[in-house]
Amino acid sequence: MQPSDHRPASLIPGRAVFPHRHLTGIEGLQPHEIVFLLDEADGWVAANRTRAISDKRLGGLTLINAFFENSTRTLLSFEIAGKRLGADVINMHAAQSSVKKGETLIDTAMTLNAMRADVIVIRHMSSGAVRLIAGKVDCPVLNAGDGQHEHPTQALLDALTIRRRRGTIAGQRVVICGDILHSRVARSNILALTALAAEVRVCAPATLMPEGIERMGVTPFTDFDTALEGADVVMMLRVQNERMAGGFIPSNREFHLRYGLTLKRLERAGPDALVMHPGPMNRGVEIDSAVADHARSAITEQVEMGVAVRMACLDVLTRRSRGVAGWA
Amino acid sequence: MQPSDHRPASLIPGRAVFPHRHLTGIEGLQPHEIVFLLDEADGWVAANRTRAISDKRLGGLTLINAFFENSTRTLLSFEIAGKRLGADVINMHAAQSSVKKGETLIDTAMTLNAMRADVIVIRHMSSGAVRLIAGKVDCPVLNAGDGQHEHPTQALLDALTIRRRRGTIAGQRVVICGDILHSRVARSNILALTALAAEVRVCAPATLMPEGIERMGVTPFTDFDTALEGADVVMMLRVQNERMAGGFIPSNREFHLRYGLTLKRLERAGPDALVMHPGPMNRGVEIDSAVADHARSAITEQVEMGVAVRMACLDVLTRRSRGVAGWA
Amino acid sequence: MQPSDHRPASLIPGRAVFPHRHLTGIEGLQPHEIVFLLDEADGWVAANRTRAISDKRLGGLTLINAFFENSTRTLLSFEIAGKRLGADVINMHAAQSSVKKGETLIDTAMTLNAMRADVIVIRHMSSGAVRLIAGKVDCPVLNAGDGQHEHPTQALLDALTIRRRRGTIAGQRVVICGDILHSRVARSNILALTALAAEVRVCAPATLMPEGIERMGVTPFTDFDTALEGADVVMMLRVQNERMAGGFIPSNREFHLRYGLTLKRLERAGPDALVMHPGPMNRGVEIDSAVADHARSAITEQVEMGVAVRMACLDVLTRRSRGVAGWA
Repeated sequence: MQPSDHRPASLIPGRAVFPHRHLTGIEGLQPHEIVFLLDEADGWVAANRTRAISDKRLGGLTLINAFFENSTRTLLSFEIAGKRLGADVINMHAAQSSVKKGETLIDTAMTLNAMRADVIVIRHMSSGAVRLIAGKVDCPVLNAGDGQHEHPTQALLDALTIRRRRGTIAGQRVVICGDILHSRVARSNILALTALAAEVRVCAPATLMPEGIERMGVTPFTDFDTALEGADVVMMLRVQNERMAGGFIPSNREFHLRYGLTLKRLERAGPDALVMHPGPMNRGVEIDSAVADHARSAITEQVEMGVAVRMACLDVLTRRSRGVAGWA
Repeated sequence: MQPSDHRPASLIPGRAVFPHRHLTGIEGLQPHEIVFLLDEADGWVAANRTRAISDKRLGGLTLINAFFENSTRTLLSFEIAGKRLGADVINMHAAQSSVKKGETLIDTAMTLNAMRADVIVIRHMSSGAVRLIAGKVDCPVLNAGDGQHEHPTQALLDALTIRRRRGTIAGQRVVICGDILHSRVARSNILALTALAAEVRVCAPATLMPEGIERMGVTPFTDFDTALEGADVVMMLRVQNERMAGGFIPSNREFHLRYGLTLKRLERAGPDALVMHPGPMNRGVEIDSAVADHARSAITEQVEMGVAVRMACLDVLTRRSRGVAGWA
Repeated sequence: MQPSDHRPASLIPGRAVFPHRHLTGIEGLQPHEIVFLLDEADGWVAANRTRAISDKRLGGLTLINAFFENSTRTLLSFEIAGKRLGADVINMHAAQSSVKKGETLIDTAMTLNAMRADVIVIRHMSSGAVRLIAGKVDCPVLNAGDGQHEHPTQALLDALTIRRRRGTIAGQRVVICGDILHSRVARSNILALTALAAEVRVCAPATLMPEGIERMGVTPFTDFDTALEGADVVMMLRVQNERMAGGFIPSNREFHLRYGLTLKRLERAGPDALVMHPGPMNRGVEIDSAVADHARSAITEQVEMGVAVRMACLDVLTRRSRGVAGWA
């Protein structure tokens, strides 16, 4: 089943309007708006499985994936999402970018805009770069990860995975473990999961834990074993040595010893706790192979949800420009 | 409105046939042929703005963008143009090219030809490379910039921008300022603008001015302030240090002092002189931000015209192979 | 004429079913299965020439070209083949791949699978990598070259070229000359040509000849002149210095002297012997320009057959998932 109609969302029971022009982050979204996006995405999951995607609703629209930072899976996911919906998908890689020639980010944005893009997906190494661009262009902008700021579609796909596997998000005890300080994935997930009333625990070495993280409504832990007690979901972050500048950097071996998810450690969590990882995994560092490949692991399902979530976001954000009834 | 019909151009009042198989340069085009391409492009501008592109007239055709030299905006522009017209667009980047494995340019061309490309767009670092390939393949070839030779679609989009903003090209005093010696953009623009009866002034340091440039029908200046007197259009070239080999190379600071377009300097031009730049800009070097972002600046409009011009060229050049009436 | 129907192949006179889910190599294919693929490909040749490809039979399907090793022509060929059939083609380049981030090959495969790819084309530097992936994913996998193992579509396009130019494959004396030891092209060609009853001779310096190659049903030669006697087809391999590790590496000049195909040397072959090369060529090393450009050369025709062969393989392998009658 595909999301089946375009009636104004406010008229559809259980659905909410989505009044935002861009998706630059989870911050600023109302809980019902997050739920609305998850509902929309849910409909695309089945469509993707059966390839029953008959309407190319983005046909004739130009989607530009402007990736200033290397990425494989996120770019693939957006490209597949866009093409499944019929859009003309154009990938702009940093390596071939005018940015190398000294052009400013805003000039690049103005260029994409002048080419009459209908939606722009941006990944950038600088926090806030996506919002900067969103303020300069005439079309919807979608954040595919900006610096240490946000990665909203990752949080949405994680939330969708949890909702489908656990039945609900509210009340779930979710442990996010890794470099909380530098992780945009952690940040967007904290925002989304607390908005949807999960109980969120974050776990990191003290040097990789943001000060005052409690203010985000989460409970910080430095001891992973303690954090895992009774967890319903264990979400491991990727060890990204390149990001952990300015602070104590544990070796991979040390990290694995204290924060690696092993089968033994997983026993501390709830009896059918879900294991998640945004990928790509460093097997043997933050997660053991036995855990990654366990029946409790939802890691490949996360990838699948990613395509569905991106289809939903691309669809919803372009409704206004496509003149869909109720979105004018 | 899209270019609305395919009647033989000779039957359409004010339109001219386009008898060329390739577009390797502006050189060799008759003025009415240039005007014909501008007219065709003009029709696509509105279509792009309203996304009212209903006919995918290049559907089923294979467009290969063979870029042996890095480019962002020109490649994006051709890719968008091709996809908007329904073509299967294939990008071949130099970085992944067999050229690296020692294959000759002609062998690469023969390969693209054997794959039954319907139109090939080429950017190459060597002057004349595009014409060389055009002579070897069975399909139309479009020059997207070759060495210091030509960049015809840039000249067409610049001409279209001038015509739309100034109402006409004939009689306009256009000042082209920068590294005239090495610039294919300058060369194609001089050819197009003089063909359309503009009064063209070129301005550069003596070391970056080609000898005998007067023979192209332009007036050379080394002093920018003098050149600007009464200008209707000021077209700045990008400072490309990598191209300015073999000659005095001014520092960016020196260049800005003598040839940078500032608001103060712009006052010497006509009261509503148009400011142009092919991009990407080096703000603060050849152009000040206050000028680039000024209401008189047509810089983002140039980008927009670029897509329309490329759509027109792709459409026109493939008419023969598509069996469009009057183009057999 | 396109391959015109989807009746169960077993019902079509002269055609055979293709019971394999993947195409990881020529090894394991029955002769009639190879012939079946050649017959299917033959139908696409004319279709490509006239652009009479009206059915986009892979419409809505996602084809992922996962290239872990650089390639131009093979990637282009698969991309064009997929797009001509209407597939959504997604290129994943090694350079932008998560592999660089330390992800395992199987995790990458699981990711592509989770995104619901409908067919995956893989090129990889390791022999056996493609088969490994094929065992892990839910969709057909096509080998576009893996290490020193196989390159089956190259062998198929070579066989098709021979069959079209020589009328038959059976009984043809084919000489394959070059680095037989490291060449997946040689290996797949030996398997295909011997299966189709050609008389295959292989020729290489002793250090680049696999021990026991006779067991593959071919006759080894170290002297090129002797090998060429009465040849119907001369297939030159590309000199790839990067692959010839661990063994005597001849200089290009030495190689040309002993193993380069010159016009004079070609005289030893049969009077209208066909000259082939998988490309890209090192002119003046393994093949002289006078030979490469000779009327007997089928080198550009090989490129053309490549697109047709890949269309056939993509079509045939996806028939099951597309629910084509007789392929359920």
